[in-house]
Amino acid sequence: METDTKPHAAPWVVQLELEPPSLKDNTADGDRLCQALERTTGIRGMRIDYQLLQRLPDTLRQSQWRVRCILADQPEGSRLLDVRPAADRRPVWGVAVDLGTTRVVLRLLDLDQLTAIGELAFDNPQTAVAPDVLARIHHTDRSGGLDQLQGLIVREINTRLGELCRIADGSPDNIWAMALAGNTTMTHLFLGLPPGRIIREPYIPVANRPPLLQASQLNLAIQAVAPVRIFPNVGSYFGGDLIAGILYSGLHTREETALLVDVGTNAEVILGNRNWMIACAGAAGPALEGGVSKIGMPAAPGVIERVRIHPDTRAFEFKTIDDQPPRGICGSGVIELAAELFKAGMLDIRGKLMPAECGPRFQTANGISHLRVVTAERSATGRDLTLSQPDLDSLIRSKAAMYTILETLVASVGLGLTDIDTFYVAGTFGSLIDPTAAITIGMLPDLPLERFQVLGNSSLEGASQALLQPRLIPAIHAIRDQTTYLELNVNQEFMNRFSAAKFLPHTDPDRFPSVRGNKYKVL
Amino acid sequence: METDTKPHAAPWVVQLELEPPSLKDNTADGDRLCQALERTTGIRGMRIDYQLLQRLPDTLRQSQWRVRCILADQPEGSRLLDVRPAADRRPVWGVAVDLGTTRVVLRLLDLDQLTAIGELAFDNPQTAVAPDVLARIHHTDRSGGLDQLQGLIVREINTRLGELCRIADGSPDNIWAMALAGNTTMTHLFLGLPPGRIIREPYIPVANRPPLLQASQLNLAIQAVAPVRIFPNVGSYFGGDLIAGILYSGLHTREETALLVDVGTNAEVILGNRNWMIACAGAAGPALEGGVSKIGMPAAPGVIERVRIHPDTRAFEFKTIDDQPPRGICGSGVIELAAELFKAGMLDIRGKLMPAECGPRFQTANGISHLRVVTAERSATGRDLTLSQPDLDSLIRSKAAMYTILETLVASVGLGLTDIDTFYVAGTFGSLIDPTAAITIGMLPDLPLERFQVLGNSSLEGASQALLQPRLIPAIHAIRDQTTYLELNVNQEFMNRFSAAKFLPHTDPDRFPSVRGNKYKVL
Repeated sequence: METDTKPHAAPWVVQLELEPPSLKDNTADGDRLCQALERTTGIRGMRIDYQLLQRLPDTLRQSQWRVRCILADQPEGSRLLDVRPAADRRPVWGVAVDLGTTRVVLRLLDLDQLTAIGELAFDNPQTAVAPDVLARIHHTDRSGGLDQLQGLIVREINTRLGELCRIADGSPDNIWAMALAGNTTMTHLFLGLPPGRIIREPYIPVANRPPLLQASQLNLAIQAVAPVRIFPNVGSYFGGDLIAGILYSGLHTREETALLVDVGTNAEVILGNRNWMIACAGAAGPALEGGVSKIGMPAAPGVIERVRIHPDTRAFEFKTIDDQPPRGICGSGVIELAAELFKAGMLDIRGKLMPAECGPRFQTANGISHLRVVTAERSATGRDLTLSQPDLDSLIRSKAAMYTILETLVASVGLGLTDIDTFYVAGTFGSLIDPTAAITIGMLPDLPLERFQVLGNSSLEGASQALLQPRLIPAIHAIRDQTTYLELNVNQEFMNRFSAAKFLPHTDPDRFPSVRGNKYKVL
Repeated sequence: METDTKPHAAPWVVQLELEPPSLKDNTADGDRLCQALERTTGIRGMRIDYQLLQRLPDTLRQSQWRVRCILADQPEGSRLLDVRPAADRRPVWGVAVDLGTTRVVLRLLDLDQLTAIGELAFDNPQTAVAPDVLARIHHTDRSGGLDQLQGLIVREINTRLGELCRIADGSPDNIWAMALAGNTTMTHLFLGLPPGRIIREPYIPVANRPPLLQASQLNLAIQAVAPVRIFPNVGSYFGGDLIAGILYSGLHTREETALLVDVGTNAEVILGNRNWMIACAGAAGPALEGGVSKIGMPAAPGVIERVRIHPDTRAFEFKTIDDQPPRGICGSGVIELAAELFKAGMLDIRGKLMPAECGPRFQTANGISHLRVVTAERSATGRDLTLSQPDLDSLIRSKAAMYTILETLVASVGLGLTDIDTFYVAGTFGSLIDPTAAITIGMLPDLPLERFQVLGNSSLEGASQALLQPRLIPAIHAIRDQTTYLELNVNQEFMNRFSAAKFLPHTDPDRFPSVRGNKYKVL
C-alpha cells in the first residue's frame, strides 16, 4: 500500500571496500557498512536484517573489509539482505512467477548480471482439487480448504524451484527475491486470503494491494528474508497478471491510446495511455480457448495449431505441434478453422455449417450437424475428429462477447475501435492467435496488422521486470491506482451490440473491409 | 538507520466507522480500511500485517464495520497491528524499559489513554554470571556465553512483564509496543550482538543504530508483531540510556547551553544546545556509587542517605531509609558525609582525616586511619560502621575525575563551567545526590542551586516518551547523529586539571565561593 515514487533503485548486488575502523574512526560495524552503502548507492535509511547484524563483525573482518552486499532497494524501504566476502561468487538469483489458474511458469533471473537463466512451466496443482476459479473459491468454503489450496501451490512452487535451480547448477538458497503476478483469486489463494467474497455481490477481495512480504512468511523455500512482491489487483476481475502485462507493454507510458486484451474464458481489456486508463472484464466463455468442443485441447504434440482450406478444392491443410498425426485442436486452431471455413464458404455469416459446401465432411448425428475435420485414418486417435454445430455456435457467442466488450469499452470514452493506435494481445493463449483469423471471424477489430502486438506471457515478463528493473515498481502501483474499472452493464445497448456481433464477421461488413480481401496462403 | 523527520505521528489506537462495501464501491477490505485510516490519520503508505489481513474480512463484518485499530506509525514505516470490533475494550499497552547493568526497570503504559499504569524494578539477572560490563563482555568470549546472557535478560523481562501485567489486571498479550534504553553493552547483550570489540581498541560496537525489530524476533512474550525500539548509541561509551536522558531533558531543543551528566562508575556527560552537542565519557571509579568502602551499599532499609555534622559539637545526625537502625551508607550518603566532615573541619583540603578534630571517632587499624561513623551499639549490624582513609582517598579521586571530565568538556568548546545555564543530573543514582554536598566536595561546579535539575530515571523517562509521543522519535536519531563524541585524552593538561581537583573543593577556592558560606542545617 505504497505511493512512493522514488525514481531510482540501487542494484541488488553491490561490491564494497570499507575503510577499516581505527581510533580516529570508530563507527560501529553496522553503521560503517550502511554509510558506505549509502555513499555508493545513494540510498537513505538502509535497514540491516537482524540476523545479519549478529554475524556482521566476523564477516567484515574475515573478508578484510572487502564485501559483496545483497540488498533490496524497494519503494517500501531498503533492506540489506546479506553480506559476504567479495571473493564469494555464489550466484544471486531472483524468481519471477506467472501464477495462472491452469498453468504456472517460473523464470529464474540472475540479479547480478540482470539476465534470465531458465524457465519452467507446470500445471497449477490446485486444478486437481478444483478445475477453475469458481470451483476453487467454493472449495475454500470447506473447513481447511483454503489452507489446502495454499499449501498445494506453495509446495509445488518449492519443488519446481528446486528442479529449476538444479538445472542451473544452484539451489533455492541462491534465490533472494520473488515477484509474482496472478489473477485476483490465484493471488488470494497463494497468500491464504479468504477469496469467498470475490464471487459474491458486491465482489470484494480481501486485498488489492498485498503488502511486500518475506519468503519465510509464506513458507517459500528460498532465502527466508527474500522480499516477495505480489502484483496488486484493480479488483476482483482485473488482477495482478494484467497489471504486469500493462507494465510490460508500456501502454501506461505512451502518448497514443492503446488497448491491451487478454483473451481467455474471461476477457480482460484495458484502454488508455499515459494520461488515463480504463479497464473492464467480461465472460467470453471457454470456447476461445478450445474448452468446449470435444476435440479441443491444450497445446501438445499432435494438436492442430494452424489450418488452411483451399478456396477452390476445399482441401484441408494442417500444421500440428511437432508435426505429429492430429489428435485434437487448440483454441487458436479453432479460431483459424472457423475463419478458413467462413472464407471457403463452408460457414454462412451466422456461423452455420453449409451442408452443400461442406460436402462429405458434413455429417449429422442425433439431429446435430457436424463437420469432420480429420478422418479416422489420418488421426492419431483412430477416430474421426469432428466439430459440432453447437461447438461453432459457442465459438460465435464467445467471439461476439469479446468484440462487444472491446466495442463497449472503447465507446465508453467516445472512441471507435479504429482509433486504437496499438492493440496489445497479452497472455500465452493470446500469443498463439493469428490476428488475421481473429479479424476474419470478427473477434478482433479490423485494424492494420502492424497495429497488433503480441506480448507473449506478459504476466511473466512484467514480474521479471519488477525484479530486473526495480525502479519500475512505483509504476506498478501507479497503473493500479490510475486505472478506472468500468463495470460492464449487460443492458439493452450491450445486447444490441452483442447481437450484431454474432455474425461473421459482423452484421455490418463495412467494419471489416479486409475480410473480403483475405487470400488463401499455403502454410 | 533512519533519517525521516516526519513531524507528526498518528495515535496508537484509532476508532473507525467504515462505509460497508457496495456495488458502487467495491474496494477490497484491506484497501478500504487503509484508506479510511489514511483519511483519519493522514498516514500514507500504511502496511497491514499479513496475518491480520487473513482474518480481516471476518473481523470487519462481525464488527459491522465499526472497528478499533492498533497501529504503529513510526518513522521507519506505518503498520497496522490489529483490528478488533469497536466494542472490544481490551487494553492496549506498551512497555518502556530502562535496561541497566545492575538494575532493570519496566514501566507499563496505556497507549490509548497515554498514561503510565505501573512500574517494576529488578536486578539484571546477568549480574549473577558477571557483575559488571567488563566481566559480561569477557563472558561472551566463551562458547554460548552471548546466548546465555541474552536468554537471561529476555526471560527475566518476560517473567517480570507477566507480574507487572497481572498487577494491572491484564496480560503481556495486551502489550503492542516496547521501547528500551540501555548502555551500549547492555543493548548488545539484549540483541545478541557480539560486544567483544566494544572494549578492545579501536572500540567498535556492532551497531549504534539497531533496526526497529518485532517482538517475535527477540522471543519477547508480548504481541509478536509489536515494534521494539532500541535507543541508538553514540558509541561504545555513550549509549542509548544517555540519548534517552537527553530526549527527556529537552537539552537538544533549548537555545541556552546546558550540560547533562550521568554520575556513576563511568561519568557520561553531554554539553550543548539546539545547535550543537558534544559528549564524552570517562571512568570516575566506583567510589561515587559507594562501591568501594566497606560500609557502602545500595539503597535499602537502614542505609544512611543523609548526614549532618553539627559544626560546633561535631555531633552526627543521620537519616536512614525507612528510619531503620543504620547498617551501611549509600553513594550519595558518602558524598554528603565527606562534605559534612570537610565543613566541620574533620577532613583537611587534601581529604585526610584530622585526628584531633575527629576525636574518639578517629581510629587506626594496621596503620590505616579510620573514622567511626556509627558505633556498634547504634548500628543494625552490632559492629562499628567505619570509613577508612583509603575509602576517602578513593572518593577524592573519583570526584576529581568527575570534575575534570566536566571541566575538560566545557573547555573544549571554549566555555567555562559557570557558563552553563542548566545542569541536568541524570540517572537514578544522580537523583539521590544533594547538589550542595556535591559542590562542597568539588565534585560538581559551584553554580546557583536553581541551575541544577535532577531528572530521576531519565533513561526510563526517555523510553516512555518514545512510546507516548512517537512524534519525538526522529529527535532520538537527530540527537545521536548530531552529537560529537570527544575522546578524552589523558594528557598532561588533563592530569594537571585532575591534580588541582584532588582537593576539597579545589586548589583554587575561588571557583567555589559558596562552599565557605555553607551553613549547617538540621535535617
